[in-house]
This record gives sequence, C-alpha cells and structure tokens, in this order.
Amino acid sequence: MIKTQAHDYLHGETSCEGFWAYDESKPGKRPGILVVHEWNGLQDYMKKRCGMLAEMGCVAFAPDIFGKGVRAKSFPECEQISAPYYKDRALTRGRARAGLEVLQKHPLVDSAKIAAIGYCFGGLVILELARTGANIAGVVSFHGQLNTPNPADGKNIKAKVLVLHGAIDPVVPPAEVAAFEKEMEDAKVDWQFISYGGAVHTFTNWNLPTTGMPAAYNEKADKRSWIAMQDFFKEIFA
Amino acid sequence: MIKTQAHDYLHGETSCEGFWAYDESKPGKRPGILVVHEWNGLQDYMKKRCGMLAEMGCVAFAPDIFGKGVRAKSFPECEQISAPYYKDRALTRGRARAGLEVLQKHPLVDSAKIAAIGYCFGGLVILELARTGANIAGVVSFHGQLNTPNPADGKNIKAKVLVLHGAIDPVVPPAEVAAFEKEMEDAKVDWQFISYGGAVHTFTNWNLPTTGMPAAYNEKADKRSWIAMQDFFKEIFA
Repeated sequence: MIKTQAHDYLHGETSCEGFWAYDESKPGKRPGILVVHEWNGLQDYMKKRCGMLAEMGCVAFAPDIFGKGVRAKSFPECEQISAPYYKDRALTRGRARAGLEVLQKHPLVDSAKIAAIGYCFGGLVILELARTGANIAGVVSFHGQLNTPNPADGKNIKAKVLVLHGAIDPVVPPAEVAAFEKEMEDAKVDWQFISYGGAVHTFTNWNLPTTGMPAAYNEKADKRSWIAMQDFFKEIFA
Repeated sequence: MIKTQAHDYLHGETSCEGFWAYDESKPGKRPGILVVHEWNGLQDYMKKRCGMLAEMGCVAFAPDIFGKGVRAKSFPECEQISAPYYKDRALTRGRARAGLEVLQKHPLVDSAKIAAIGYCFGGLVILELARTGANIAGVVSFHGQLNTPNPADGKNIKAKVLVLHGAIDPVVPPAEVAAFEKEMEDAKVDWQFISYGGAVHTFTNWNLPTTGMPAAYNEKADKRSWIAMQDFFKEIFA
C-alpha cells in the first residue's frame, strides 16, 4: 500500500512543501530517492514518478526547490520562477541540501542507500547537489542541464553519476555536453552518459506532445532511461 | 551443456573458420548472435564471449572476417591483417554477410531474433553490416570504430543500434562520434549511445592491463556495458 503525503519543512526562513511516497505496508529500511522537479515546480508529474519509485521499494521524497505554493502554469511563469535558481547556484545547492536532510531523517531510509534523480531543471539541481560533496551513492539526470559556473567543484563529487540525455536536445547542446564530460574526467568522477537518438528535451514527460521542438515526449527513450536508472540503482545499492 | 565447435565455410573462394557456441541440451529455437572479433582475428577472447552468450540462451556464432588461419600475435601483425578490411568496406560487408548467412541457417536460430555484436574492429564491421540493410533486429558495438566512407548508407539501416563507447577512447575521437551521431540522426535510425567515463579503447577485454593508453581493461565499464547489451536484447527480442 503506497502512502503519499505532502510534507512542510523550512530552508532558512523559506517554507517548502515537499512530497513523500513509500510503501507503508512493508517493514524495514530501504533506499531513499530524492526526486527533483522540472522548472515548473513540484507538480503531479513528479508525484507520479515518486509513486513509481515507491512501487519499486524505495522511499521517494520530492523536495520543493522553489518554496511552498510557487508553481508555474505557463511557459513565462516557468521562466520567471526558475530564473533565480539557474542564476544563484549557492541558493539552489542549499535548497537541495535542505530537501536531502528531510529524506535522510526518514525512519525507513537506509542512510547508506540514498540517491538523487532530477528532471530538466532538477537534473541541474542534483548535479549541483553532488558538487557540494553530498554523501550519497548516486545521482541520475533526466534531460537535465549540465552547465555550472563552478566546474572545479567536480572534484567534490562522491556520488556516481548517470546522465540520460536526448541526443538532439536543443536545450542542452553539444558544447554543454562536452564541457560537462571534461569536468567529470578532470575530477575523476565515476560517470556514465547515455544519449537517446531522436530524443529532444523533456523526453520522459508523458504530458507533452510526442513531436515538436524543443521538448517532446519520446516513449522509447522514456522506457529505456527508466531501465538504465534501475540498473544503476541495482549497482549502487548492491 | 554448452557445445562449442569450429565451423568451416566459404566467402567466395576464401576459406573461413568461424566458431559456434550454444546449449545443445535445450530444445527450441532461440535468438542468434553474430559475434565479430577485434583486429587480431577470431581468437580465445571472442570464443569466451560466445560461451557467455550461449549461457544466456542464445546461439552465438563468431564469423571469421580475415579468413582461416589469419590471426595476429603482435601489434604490427594486427595492423597488417586488418588494414585491407578497414580500407575495402565492400569486402568487409561481404565477409560479414557470409557469416550472417551461416548463422541464419542454423536450425536452432529464430530468424526473427538475430543481432550482431562486435568489438573494436568488429564494431566497425557490424555497423557496416547494418548499413547493407541486413534484416536483423539489432547491432551492438563495444568500443568500435564508427567511421564509414558511406554515411549515406545509414538510410539502409533496419537494425536498432546500440553503441557502447569509452569516453576517453583515443582511437574513436569526439569528431568521429559526432559524425556518427549525425549519420544516425540524418537517417532516422533507432540508435542509442553510451559513454563510460574513464574508459579507453578495448575496455571490455580482460586480457589487457587495467591502465594505459590507448587501450586498457575497465571492469566497471565492462560489466555495465554487458548489462546494457542484455537490456537491449530484452527489448529487441521481446
């Protein structure tokens, strides 16, 4: 029986409203997954991903990076509410760590088995979280931005890194991919990168149309990337 | 009980000696995998991979691209025996198709479930085979060369394509990767590309030392790539 629940917490003086999903009918500690939302804020799509992770036997927690009630309904609103977090990476890192601390304290979470996954903007967030030196087993980016103003912080990364990328994603162009790969190699991170042919931005989000630029749903890439994530979890939680 | 056996066949007037591995104690048709060797010719490493595929329930056949008895024991010999096949792609394609025909005729092979995998030089071969329009379900390249003099032939590809690549493989540099990705996109091939951080050329071959350039064994990338191949087979043989 999957339990889902909103969860209020603070980052400094900012109120945040995250979301839990886990199977409350099963006993025992289990992997904990931080699930970071897209640039529209924590909405139903992320909650469904949390439910899928709970069905897989994890405790899923979606942190609220933008703060309680800050949710976008339109493209301009997305740009507006996410812009400060693309710009001020210290803020973004702090907000992510606040969410991680909530997850770490959950009594059902095995603290040695924590990973973070993120979608689009959330992919950027979980990589910035890794660059803080967060003591987690792995991070997975789904069509996330890879840029950072602080590539030298790659050396802090303890987590294994898996990036799942749309090969023709115009939002994350080849130069950004190349800079990221260089950062990972320079810092000797344990990293893997999968490109899905024909996939553009946001290829996992079934709410989008299946064609169009810059973002569209791609069922094959969605399914394949979910399997790749599960293989990754199998390895890092072994 | 895995049966292994050498197999003589002809391509035109050239004698070839391939290699079979399959479980003869089990009845029924099953997937058939063409397993194409590195630039040193068909040797023990390939035969062990065939055995692993047979254990997985496939019929594995390693074709002999260079011809019977043509096997290299040194780096200069590798260069010498492989050079004609890097240069004359029509010859290489013909030799690969001759091997595929042997595999297709095996009574235990399900003709709707055929794939080809290749290592280094063999990766180049299975992509050239796909570019002939071979009617097979998929091809998998392990640290293979991606270049072709005939990128327009990408449009013939019917197979799904999975490329497993060492992120810092100096033998297959970024420009070659970029040209390949463009070929795949232009031809609307169903393709995926995985880069393994820290991995150089020949990362799957346990006979190599674990450090050094341009080629070295990388256990993590070896294991991860084998899992990726199994996932791919699960999808294409479903």
